[in-house]
Amino acid sequence: MSKAETSAISPTRAENYPEWYQAVVRAADLAENSPVRGCMVIKPWGYAIWELIQRQLDDRIKATGHENAYFPLFIPLSFLQKEAEHVEGFAKECAVVTHHRLEMRDGRLVPAAELEEPLVVRPTSETVIGDSFARWVQSYRDLPLLINQWANVVRWEMRPRLFLRTAEFLWQEGHTAHATEAEAREETLKMLEVYRSFAEDVLALPVIPGEKPENERFPGAVNTYSIEAMMQDGKALQAGTSHYLGQNFSRAAGIEFLDSDGQRKFAYTTSWGVSTRLIGGVVMTHADDDGLRLPPRIAPKHAVVLPVIPKPEQESAVLAYADEVAARLSAVCYDGQSIRVSVDRRDLRGGEKNWQWVKKGAPLRLEVGPRDVEGRTVALYRRDRPPREKEFVPLEKLVTDMPCLLQEIQDNLFRQALEMRQSRTRTDIATLEEMREFFATGEQDGFVVAKWCGDVASVEVLEEMKVSIRNLPLAQSGTAGRCVLTGREATLDAVFAKAY
Amino acid sequence: MSKAETSAISPTRAENYPEWYQAVVRAADLAENSPVRGCMVIKPWGYAIWELIQRQLDDRIKATGHENAYFPLFIPLSFLQKEAEHVEGFAKECAVVTHHRLEMRDGRLVPAAELEEPLVVRPTSETVIGDSFARWVQSYRDLPLLINQWANVVRWEMRPRLFLRTAEFLWQEGHTAHATEAEAREETLKMLEVYRSFAEDVLALPVIPGEKPENERFPGAVNTYSIEAMMQDGKALQAGTSHYLGQNFSRAAGIEFLDSDGQRKFAYTTSWGVSTRLIGGVVMTHADDDGLRLPPRIAPKHAVVLPVIPKPEQESAVLAYADEVAARLSAVCYDGQSIRVSVDRRDLRGGEKNWQWVKKGAPLRLEVGPRDVEGRTVALYRRDRPPREKEFVPLEKLVTDMPCLLQEIQDNLFRQALEMRQSRTRTDIATLEEMREFFATGEQDGFVVAKWCGDVASVEVLEEMKVSIRNLPLAQSGTAGRCVLTGREATLDAVFAKAY
Repeated sequence: MSKAETSAISPTRAENYPEWYQAVVRAADLAENSPVRGCMVIKPWGYAIWELIQRQLDDRIKATGHENAYFPLFIPLSFLQKEAEHVEGFAKECAVVTHHRLEMRDGRLVPAAELEEPLVVRPTSETVIGDSFARWVQSYRDLPLLINQWANVVRWEMRPRLFLRTAEFLWQEGHTAHATEAEAREETLKMLEVYRSFAEDVLALPVIPGEKPENERFPGAVNTYSIEAMMQDGKALQAGTSHYLGQNFSRAAGIEFLDSDGQRKFAYTTSWGVSTRLIGGVVMTHADDDGLRLPPRIAPKHAVVLPVIPKPEQESAVLAYADEVAARLSAVCYDGQSIRVSVDRRDLRGGEKNWQWVKKGAPLRLEVGPRDVEGRTVALYRRDRPPREKEFVPLEKLVTDMPCLLQEIQDNLFRQALEMRQSRTRTDIATLEEMREFFATGEQDGFVVAKWCGDVASVEVLEEMKVSIRNLPLAQSGTAGRCVLTGREATLDAVFAKAY
Repeated sequence: MSKAETSAISPTRAENYPEWYQAVVRAADLAENSPVRGCMVIKPWGYAIWELIQRQLDDRIKATGHENAYFPLFIPLSFLQKEAEHVEGFAKECAVVTHHRLEMRDGRLVPAAELEEPLVVRPTSETVIGDSFARWVQSYRDLPLLINQWANVVRWEMRPRLFLRTAEFLWQEGHTAHATEAEAREETLKMLEVYRSFAEDVLALPVIPGEKPENERFPGAVNTYSIEAMMQDGKALQAGTSHYLGQNFSRAAGIEFLDSDGQRKFAYTTSWGVSTRLIGGVVMTHADDDGLRLPPRIAPKHAVVLPVIPKPEQESAVLAYADEVAARLSAVCYDGQSIRVSVDRRDLRGGEKNWQWVKKGAPLRLEVGPRDVEGRTVALYRRDRPPREKEFVPLEKLVTDMPCLLQEIQDNLFRQALEMRQSRTRTDIATLEEMREFFATGEQDGFVVAKWCGDVASVEVLEEMKVSIRNLPLAQSGTAGRCVLTGREATLDAVFAKAY
């Protein structure tokens, strides 16, 4: 490996965190800005991560009884208008289709054939799915209706940032309808728990599940819940949301059913979603100054084999051994799947090749050279250790240890992230003054867990600090104290932080 | 089973083929029209078929060395304009985004904030992907670039028809760039072969791979190839296309590279795609007057277990046995995957339940009643046999036979479709007069395989017959003869048909 004491990513986290993020995304070849304002191109390595996220989350969504379906990209204005809060929440960021034809006029291509009713490119699908649900639900026997959709959505964005905030993004949106409030509330929390366990077990992101304060609710929701993760700059990232919508959308769309008691009633609905934003969260949680570090469960390659060929006459023996190493490892299972391993045969200098895989975040790099062929060993580099630290391991031992090794890296990344969050969470801040002081420096941002009286008017003072209540954790202490904002008596525990 | 001698679908194929198609799609609960003009809602059973198509085709696309990525939904007008033929081909069906905000004016929601440059919702992505390729390709070492995208696309449609022609549809589009013409041509044909084998082995659709005549080429392509399937009304359905684009798009987008000889050259590109239209093809090929028949490889359920409970006191024993049957079968593998089976416990009359699964096309229905519990048998109904034909099979035998049974149904559907195509393919039509006569009745439409001189001007006479040359099959006889259209000497074999 060539690079001496400097890090592979410039600037480092300490030097400039936002630029470090962009540099990691670029160095890992995850995505790039497109010339189409606010839209990104997700490159193969980034998309392969998304596919692994999709596949594993989809399994969990199906295991909890949901079925996938697909609804139109376009929403008529009249649909959107039905739920007043909803349309107000999204009106500012809607891409609007007004024509369905292009014509050449004076050598310039211009829109032609105006639509009678403009169409909005879906920013979310409650209204258009509600329209179908109204047709599908007639009787209590048709409930619960448990539907999920994988789709692209568009929310116009003035300050786009790869994965974190883009005009178009990919996501899944669950939409369910239930006969009773209790069942819909249970669904809302069940899916929040699916997101929590997925984030922690698969993405190695420690998250805090909780309820959003009223001022942070999804437009049209009765209750909004979120999982919140801490990034390495101490800011929060909302990593997933689950909404209890009550009868707001079922009244708007007419999702009515004949109940077993012979009464016509409006259904109770929920919706919940996570998006490609999760990839941004993975980068900002696990990457270091040498680039990305991927939790094995979402690593497109668990391991790459890097042949080292000092002399041309050694080439065939080394390559044959490299293939053998890859073949042996792909016969091993981790997490119910074959280990994803390949040999990097590209014609590049060994140091450069090795560093590329460091930056892309592959959990394991396996160098094999002439001596390894003889000794039937590999030089093992772990991405959760310093990049130059290597260990010579007999191939047979590596084959046996592989599942444990990957799980150890998965657990390590989770543990490191959890320790980071714990070390940057303050529970001793009791007054507005202390809070101002804490968030003023900006260098040591983090979470403040403190008491809140529950009065939404009180959060206004947070704006100047660029701080918000992220959520009220489901795990409440129940103790009484003083509201950190108003000094009034308060029992709620709330998480305060700056956020993406 | 209740229904006596009538068929489950009305009208039948013979009575009204187009309406029969809509009725099958509705009865199988595959999809529905949405109030958004031209857009469809793909319902869970239809979407589950699409997921099986996606997963299996994706495996084949990856096995041939391609990687998935994701590109923007929106295309600036200036991009589209770069390739003259391309923009001309798509201008008439482009949905155009002109605003990025909504405002309430006089109680009405109206588009606000006009875009500087209107954006087109992608009808296909050659131009926007070409823009990325131009950045990604610098040297011959970056080639070949083998990319695939799963996405939604929009082509405005005045006469929509579920799956076959919809304004928005789902598809995959492959886009590749190569250093040489030979390599790009090889790729074009390789992917055509992937489509052929996928259509035949997975969808059980016999198809004819061949080259499109010049007048039917993709706008901007040098050569277009297709696979063509015959529907049960004798019409052709283009089920997939693969295009050799030469340097047309690489010149337009500037995909230039430094070759190993030190020269700067434009890359040679290809593109290829299949869409949700395939589901329409599956319906129109395999469904019968009782509803859908699904090839096992794309059946969301291979088998459903239907408990028959004459007396309440028999319920627990029958349901326990039904669960046992399902559990035993799901432990069996077919085509590398666990058999997909479930117990239908819904509170519905047995006849109605059975007919629902007939209409949905599940390959196997397994009735279990009190006598089956005692004798450890099941009453087996195969969807490739008449709906009332049943056979009592010992459970142990069924478990053993299951993979063979499913493959037999898969092969049966393919064979029946192939026989249908063969019986409706005429190779003895030698003159325009005979062709007119053949296609005039409309009742016995089919394929005409005849000689063609290759002169595109000659196909004009086909228009009044609503016939077109579907393709020039890759398997050419090489014999000489007379062009069926012009009477001139001709060696090309061409497939003539009406088409969807």
